Amino acid sequence: MVFDNEKKVYMDKLYKPDKSKKTTVDKEIIFLIDKINSLLEYYTTSSCAGRIVLITIPKKNRKDLSKWLFSSHKKIKFSELPLTKFPKETVYFRQEGLILHIACKDIESAQKIVDKAKFVGFKRSGIMATSKRIIVEICSTEKLEAPICKNGKLIVSDEYLKFLIFEANKKMKQNEIKTKKFYRLM
Amino acid sequence: MVFDNEKKVYMDKLYKPDKSKKTTVDKEIIFLIDKINSLLEYYTTSSCAGRIVLITIPKKNRKDLSKWLFSSHKKIKFSELPLTKFPKETVYFRQEGLILHIACKDIESAQKIVDKAKFVGFKRSGIMATSKRIIVEICSTEKLEAPICKNGKLIVSDEYLKFLIFEANKKMKQNEIKTKKFYRLM
Repeated sequence: MVFDNEKKVYMDKLYKPDKSKKTTVDKEIIFLIDKINSLLEYYTTSSCAGRIVLITIPKKNRKDLSKWLFSSHKKIKFSELPLTKFPKETVYFRQEGLILHIACKDIESAQKIVDKAKFVGFKRSGIMATSKRIIVEICSTEKLEAPICKNGKLIVSDEYLKFLIFEANKKMKQNEIKTKKFYRLM
Repeated sequence: MVFDNEKKVYMDKLYKPDKSKKTTVDKEIIFLIDKINSLLEYYTTSSCAGRIVLITIPKKNRKDLSKWLFSSHKKIKFSELPLTKFPKETVYFRQEGLILHIACKDIESAQKIVDKAKFVGFKRSGIMATSKRIIVEICSTEKLEAPICKNGKLIVSDEYLKFLIFEANKKMKQNEIKTKKFYRLM
């Protein structure tokens, strides 16, 4: 019953705006989140569909001081990138795949969903907590992480940026294909 | 007893050359591997200290067709990179942190080692298998993934490559610090 009550609390706030000032679910994966939450053994606690971002990395790698200059959950075009004004910190072009955190009723249901995730290629997946709640983390492996700017200046050519975008869009597509496969397995 | 017998099998082959033609353990983390294997509840099944590599990515992202052009488990210098002859495939400069796979006696000991890993900053850590054996995967978060070459030609400047190396070396250092902290917690 504890699990069912906790699930109810999470479901009540699922589509309400959260602290990060956007709704808790990226619209690109609502179909998957709804499917998972329709199953008795699971509920999602956080999620990201996958994204392409421009992010500043402060000197001492303090995440709380990072700034997001751009963010998209789908394929992007060169013209979308804000390339006119840069901060002094190093700016990274980053692409990353889907991330899900899912509370599970028991270890067996947790293992079942991890196996499905691995099967479709979300290889960095596992049970990350078992004591208070059983939480599974599902991560895809697509990634790009390339510095593009330092000391306020761009350090790569437009051609290079366009190639980064080409590669990032390809990875977003792979991530999307896996996401749909995972949905069909659920 | 099953666990103890399996551990014995793994320990017997730990420092013998494996199929990948090098010994199974990077010398930079032998101290940690030996510590983990000295504990009754654990044994390591695979490991990587963290690395900087140049790797070709074939068109359809088929891992088995990837070629390693360069690999180092420690900080590198610009002069070490083989920059004279490039293949036709896209070449990526990649840095990644420590990865460990550890078999655990039970779920409790698995959760204990995951908690320690997370505490030192190996955030992508979890229990990835529970059915036949209980296997924990511990991954650090440092990463760089930047294309540097396509169609046989370098697409970034020497200055950019030097900055990539600077950033990669910094991440290797952070990874090393976490690895030592993890060792002290074990």
